[in-house]
Amino acid sequence: MTGLPFARRTHGVGPSMPRPEHGGLISFEDGYAYPGGLPDLGDIAATAARAFRPETLQYAPRVGLPELREWIASYLRAEGTQVTGESVLIVNGAKQGIDLACKLFLDPGDAVVVTRPNYHSALNIFRGWDVELVEVGLDDEGLDVAELETRLHARAKGGQRTPKLLYVVPEFHNPTGVTTSRRRREAILHLAERYGILIVEDDPYRRIRFEGAAVPPLQVLDPTRVIGLGTFSKLLAPGLRIGWVAAAPDVVRRMAALKADGGSCPLTQRMILEYCRAGRFEPHVRQMTETYARHRDAMTTALRAEVPEAIFATPSGGYYLWLRLPEVVDSDRLLDDAKRLGVDFLPGSRFYATPGPKNVLRLAYSYASPDDITEGVRRLGEALRASA
Amino acid sequence: MTGLPFARRTHGVGPSMPRPEHGGLISFEDGYAYPGGLPDLGDIAATAARAFRPETLQYAPRVGLPELREWIASYLRAEGTQVTGESVLIVNGAKQGIDLACKLFLDPGDAVVVTRPNYHSALNIFRGWDVELVEVGLDDEGLDVAELETRLHARAKGGQRTPKLLYVVPEFHNPTGVTTSRRRREAILHLAERYGILIVEDDPYRRIRFEGAAVPPLQVLDPTRVIGLGTFSKLLAPGLRIGWVAAAPDVVRRMAALKADGGSCPLTQRMILEYCRAGRFEPHVRQMTETYARHRDAMTTALRAEVPEAIFATPSGGYYLWLRLPEVVDSDRLLDDAKRLGVDFLPGSRFYATPGPKNVLRLAYSYASPDDITEGVRRLGEALRASA
Repeated sequence: MTGLPFARRTHGVGPSMPRPEHGGLISFEDGYAYPGGLPDLGDIAATAARAFRPETLQYAPRVGLPELREWIASYLRAEGTQVTGESVLIVNGAKQGIDLACKLFLDPGDAVVVTRPNYHSALNIFRGWDVELVEVGLDDEGLDVAELETRLHARAKGGQRTPKLLYVVPEFHNPTGVTTSRRRREAILHLAERYGILIVEDDPYRRIRFEGAAVPPLQVLDPTRVIGLGTFSKLLAPGLRIGWVAAAPDVVRRMAALKADGGSCPLTQRMILEYCRAGRFEPHVRQMTETYARHRDAMTTALRAEVPEAIFATPSGGYYLWLRLPEVVDSDRLLDDAKRLGVDFLPGSRFYATPGPKNVLRLAYSYASPDDITEGVRRLGEALRASA
Repeated sequence: MTGLPFARRTHGVGPSMPRPEHGGLISFEDGYAYPGGLPDLGDIAATAARAFRPETLQYAPRVGLPELREWIASYLRAEGTQVTGESVLIVNGAKQGIDLACKLFLDPGDAVVVTRPNYHSALNIFRGWDVELVEVGLDDEGLDVAELETRLHARAKGGQRTPKLLYVVPEFHNPTGVTTSRRRREAILHLAERYGILIVEDDPYRRIRFEGAAVPPLQVLDPTRVIGLGTFSKLLAPGLRIGWVAAAPDVVRRMAALKADGGSCPLTQRMILEYCRAGRFEPHVRQMTETYARHRDAMTTALRAEVPEAIFATPSGGYYLWLRLPEVVDSDRLLDDAKRLGVDFLPGSRFYATPGPKNVLRLAYSYASPDDITEGVRRLGEALRASA
């Protein structure tokens, strides 16, 4: 079968590869949950499988359990959106939402706006759809709207297709940690309206805010132009594989028709619902936010002490810290040295659609404990000096 | 958002729509599990969520849990295949396997061979990929290989694309219940080899055999040309949303790279694994097979008594019975009368890529109890006489 000429479109298996027993390895690689913070869902799982058996072991509505759709809608309304349950599609993690948006809206050769750098798994999904990636830089206020405007104008003049989608992580951007300012959000929406571009707002880290005030989601500012994505992976447990799409009911219906998996798992949907209804969700999110704030603090403190040559903005939330090292450093090569010394990370090259700077890398502080973070950063500093 | 011109590719939400409280309705519509046969998985769910917490609540390998891949491989080896765990990809039900095969192998405008009639959800998935469906008839031995050969020859002469994939449900075909003979399987493989066509063998009902000897899967007869699909939905519980693809390890890796959902749910994977390891799987499958045989018997007995004008082949396994009614009957219209009388089914029109005979329909005997089956068939006969 290997020899068949027409198989195509594979770009690496991405971030959810098997995680071996670390042994000595301290991992800053992926946005895994802190294992010490994973809740005990044993009772909830038993209830879902037993008391809700005819629902949770049977085929479920392809759009998702009605009660969970309603719960998510009310959760989103607390942020200021106007969505109802009909606007919510349950998916197997927000990534499936990106994929369904591609399947519904894109044809091969279409263009999609991404940030530079951009969440690497989203880049891989877009690549799987044979689309052109239009990279636009970002600064400490978010996506560079002036650059986007220049690019859109030039494309229109040059007869190139106007992008159909703009993908953005406005809150604690992956990988840079940047939160898009309100002013910038409004400018993005204004430009998107002018050019008829749909926005995919991927917002998994919104609630993992350590300090500062929340900025309204783009979907609140313009409910008609934005497809919102959220997930319980970063709030409760990645293994439940439940996220959501929030969009116009018509878009939700059409995405559901393309959701070729017979609907997301009703058992884990019910588990989440019972967990939320038992009043356990909000305290858990608060506790995890405090946990991740301590992780962030451990990392920034260690970086200042052990890697003083690194430049970074301290993230106010989310899972990641973006490190800029001296220009001579090649983070792909640094990774080899780092692994030998027992620490890993994702080199910056993973986050660019076209080759970018070599001296950047992403550290995830979510997974390792504060003590391991301190030791891991020390090893990173050692690797840096070893490779210098 | 509704007004955007470029959204496309939606063909109905398919079989897993919300199931309302039936009230008086007796449903022969979809291949749901018999509710009375759903196992108590409460203890297994609690164990999976609690004792395996770092595995089941965290991101899992995108290819699936290694132990479950190994278990499925050994299960398939008992059928005579040579697969190892590396050849198994865990997916969210076999439907996702069809979708991934499309994503990996097909370009818009490519051709796919399907049977006439064909499993309707597979048709919808193929339609979502903008491919040409080449329908080939089937008789009581399976796909009509002579017709397929004529079609392939004519297409080659006429400069039309040779189909890349052939989709087949060789065992207890959905919707007709036909099992493809060994001779016919060999002829399909021979022709597929001559024309360089990949075969997608969708085999969810293999173990639900009431009588007769099993025929080797196509994948056993030719391991290089066949992508095998299986699922726990028809063996244990649809709600767990766990199926598998069995293919060359290289194909598995590339499909995994396109599986844009961060991997299937590790919690339900672990539940299945613990259930199987506890020795509960085989007795359950045997028990369900006996249950569905009683359902089948209730249906055929009732049909002979209440709908004597119907022609059908008694299925030796699977979930479905394909009914041919007098030529004047239009099963789409009959459905309206039937629903008014408290019974439903899927009209034949759902199973044809291009318009087919009107006087056929599919009855699923899996979901309703034997008593309800008897009553439902009585109502069907009443509807038929009412509409005559």
